[in-house]
Amino acid sequence: MIYPDDSLTLHTDLYQINMIYTYWQTGIDQKPVVFEAYFRQEPFGNGFVVFAGLTHVISFLEKLKFSQTDLAYLKSLNLYSDEFLNYLQNWRLTATLRAPHEGEIMFAHEPLLQIEGPLVDAQLLETALLNMVNFQTLIATKAARVVIAAQGDPLMEFGTRRAQELDAALWGTRAAYIGGFGATSNVRAGKLFNIPVSGTHAHALVQAYQNDYAAFKAYAQTHNDVVFLVDTFDTLKSGVPAAIKVAKELGDKINFQGIRIDSGDMVLLSNRVRDMLDAAGFPQAKIYASNDLDEYTITDLKQRGAKIDVWGVGTKLITAFDQPALGAVYKMVSIDGKNTIKLSNDIEKISIPGKKQIWRQQDADILTFADENNTGRPILHDIFVNGKKHYDIPAIQQIQVYAKQSLAALPNRFKQLINPAIYPVTLSEELSAAKSLAITNIQQTMEEN
Amino acid sequence: MIYPDDSLTLHTDLYQINMIYTYWQTGIDQKPVVFEAYFRQEPFGNGFVVFAGLTHVISFLEKLKFSQTDLAYLKSLNLYSDEFLNYLQNWRLTATLRAPHEGEIMFAHEPLLQIEGPLVDAQLLETALLNMVNFQTLIATKAARVVIAAQGDPLMEFGTRRAQELDAALWGTRAAYIGGFGATSNVRAGKLFNIPVSGTHAHALVQAYQNDYAAFKAYAQTHNDVVFLVDTFDTLKSGVPAAIKVAKELGDKINFQGIRIDSGDMVLLSNRVRDMLDAAGFPQAKIYASNDLDEYTITDLKQRGAKIDVWGVGTKLITAFDQPALGAVYKMVSIDGKNTIKLSNDIEKISIPGKKQIWRQQDADILTFADENNTGRPILHDIFVNGKKHYDIPAIQQIQVYAKQSLAALPNRFKQLINPAIYPVTLSEELSAAKSLAITNIQQTMEEN
Repeated sequence: MIYPDDSLTLHTDLYQINMIYTYWQTGIDQKPVVFEAYFRQEPFGNGFVVFAGLTHVISFLEKLKFSQTDLAYLKSLNLYSDEFLNYLQNWRLTATLRAPHEGEIMFAHEPLLQIEGPLVDAQLLETALLNMVNFQTLIATKAARVVIAAQGDPLMEFGTRRAQELDAALWGTRAAYIGGFGATSNVRAGKLFNIPVSGTHAHALVQAYQNDYAAFKAYAQTHNDVVFLVDTFDTLKSGVPAAIKVAKELGDKINFQGIRIDSGDMVLLSNRVRDMLDAAGFPQAKIYASNDLDEYTITDLKQRGAKIDVWGVGTKLITAFDQPALGAVYKMVSIDGKNTIKLSNDIEKISIPGKKQIWRQQDADILTFADENNTGRPILHDIFVNGKKHYDIPAIQQIQVYAKQSLAALPNRFKQLINPAIYPVTLSEELSAAKSLAITNIQQTMEEN
Repeated sequence: MIYPDDSLTLHTDLYQINMIYTYWQTGIDQKPVVFEAYFRQEPFGNGFVVFAGLTHVISFLEKLKFSQTDLAYLKSLNLYSDEFLNYLQNWRLTATLRAPHEGEIMFAHEPLLQIEGPLVDAQLLETALLNMVNFQTLIATKAARVVIAAQGDPLMEFGTRRAQELDAALWGTRAAYIGGFGATSNVRAGKLFNIPVSGTHAHALVQAYQNDYAAFKAYAQTHNDVVFLVDTFDTLKSGVPAAIKVAKELGDKINFQGIRIDSGDMVLLSNRVRDMLDAAGFPQAKIYASNDLDEYTITDLKQRGAKIDVWGVGTKLITAFDQPALGAVYKMVSIDGKNTIKLSNDIEKISIPGKKQIWRQQDADILTFADENNTGRPILHDIFVNGKKHYDIPAIQQIQVYAKQSLAALPNRFKQLINPAIYPVTLSEELSAAKSLAITNIQQTMEEN
């Protein structure tokens, strides 16, 4: 069903609306609260994450209100009073949102998002904000790992066909760019986000012209800076010889860039292809590789002497194949000015109470209450203040540079792909004491009941 | 950047546009072709997939044309002539699309989509169609596995916050419903797709009212059919006693449905909670469980005697955690009425030439050329004919019933979660002969070159 006024405001879990209904009926919907989103463990066994998703969060919040068909749908559920639907109709965002810059390097237990405002706002935002930040941070982080493995080689993202639906392809490739990729195959991402786009041709081109030579020639006559995909029929016997023949025939006109291999033994093939290109007088021609690559296969291919210059990464990046969810959670840390906590039998799952700031020092972070003074660089910035946008999103190229410089400043021991050193994130004395106190208080309350 | 006329037409890989440019310049863009999408191996080691994604494909195709800003962006790339951009501006879909019904049970190597029409159309559609069908089929299949594990227990999908961006949450929960889930937490999915929505409350509610009892009482006074989440502080000491107290105090008014556990030892806790509920006079109250569940954990919990009645499944389903990509490919199988093939050194990767039909017989499928007669039920139906929609999407409830009945008809040996029997999919003699011939022909052509 298509609704002309459909909004993303209902992109939330039903229980959020149910809770808001209870808050409203009992008159606590405007209670001042602070919620924070954080994850408990870096994905992929990595030593850090690259924060991403804020741009989508901002555009989501700017448009957030209940449309007529949203309200009509909620009414149809027969769960809420008309007065409540009227209240939702008049609801407008008044909360403050704080977050790191996109591209910031972040660590476990640090707030990625901090919502301060009325309880109703904080509850309404949870699901969608986690949905965007969980995914985009995951992909930017995966991309950063692949960048580390590629040791300076150019990287292209082209996983759209394997992404988890359209938004994942679109925002995922933007996150990959933030994490250090140089280009995407997704044309709409190029249009919307000003990311460089890149692409050559598929096996279908060769099938359409029946053989490699005819296909490459047709392609070269209609494009500059050409890269030929050489493995439709047989890389060494047919694809590469045809590529060389066309490159020789058409000469400088086509600015022959190289060839792409998408299957087979990459070490063997890339060395043989390198020899063939060199012998034919194309030592500058590059070898592009694709085929289920990730940071592990790239590391392995390099170690085994593959002569690959440019890497195209699809499925394993865009789905974060080896760990497809970040698992950030969103917890109430303060209500009515009082610190609050979520207990758990699993000590890792006990939240840290209080509205916080993160201070980045030399190779260590300190979490403090937001109103404590500290040395170092504060990481959380005002994004929305009292419901109004208070932040200009930098150009995507600036975000990429910011992530790159932040990563460059991080010592290598935290950037090992396997078993990195654990970056020190400590609590201020006040925060640490508040956590102990909150646990004690709740345990007492439970014993009294 | 936001464009008022933005379309999804550029949700494709740049190389598709590059190839179309070559086809157009060399005058073969209108050559009649057939492309088919298929996967080579069922995901999760499963014995089948549940086809999903067609509804999104249809809405995508209905709106497919290049907008002014799409064309302006392509022009800005300096890759294409103005005449070509004019050609794209006038382009309209004229291809025919065939596919199974959503909810159909499908197997490796069977076409999930068949595009017949001009080369330009087939090339333009590839990326987006794979993006939708790969993901939704993956999730419907994962859901069907969880349904099998749950042995008739109700199942709810609530993974939105962990999904890979908004579309994955939205279309993923629709796919989960097709695969047999009973409800979703995603309110917008409920609105757009008419899926039942479900939800209770989060830990935040208990924090907002400072203790379980106050929170449950407030919630119960504002809702019917209540389920209390009992593990915010301590399930057995605080959560369940508070739930029972509120249920007794408010009696029939609140239609107490049960409690939900989201952490801890589910076998131990569910048995203790069952005893507590029974002893308190609530033998009908149900125990809901969540916490990183999937088909394996549900099977395990059941085997170990957990007393859980309703299952809430999030992350592991909505991301298809153990295999987050289906990997369907899209290959040209015919051009100008001639069969064509993509070779590979990996015999599994050699495509099957020719425009096909799938015939479902008693526990076996036969692939034939589309114009061969055969017995059995044909699986591919006309969805678009010459660019016009030719198919009414059934109501989502009908699609779910269709999938359920199709699965019920499939013998259990193909539905084992681990090491299922391989469902027989054979080629007709004509198709088999055509494949051999195509391979021989290409090998000859390569030797002649």
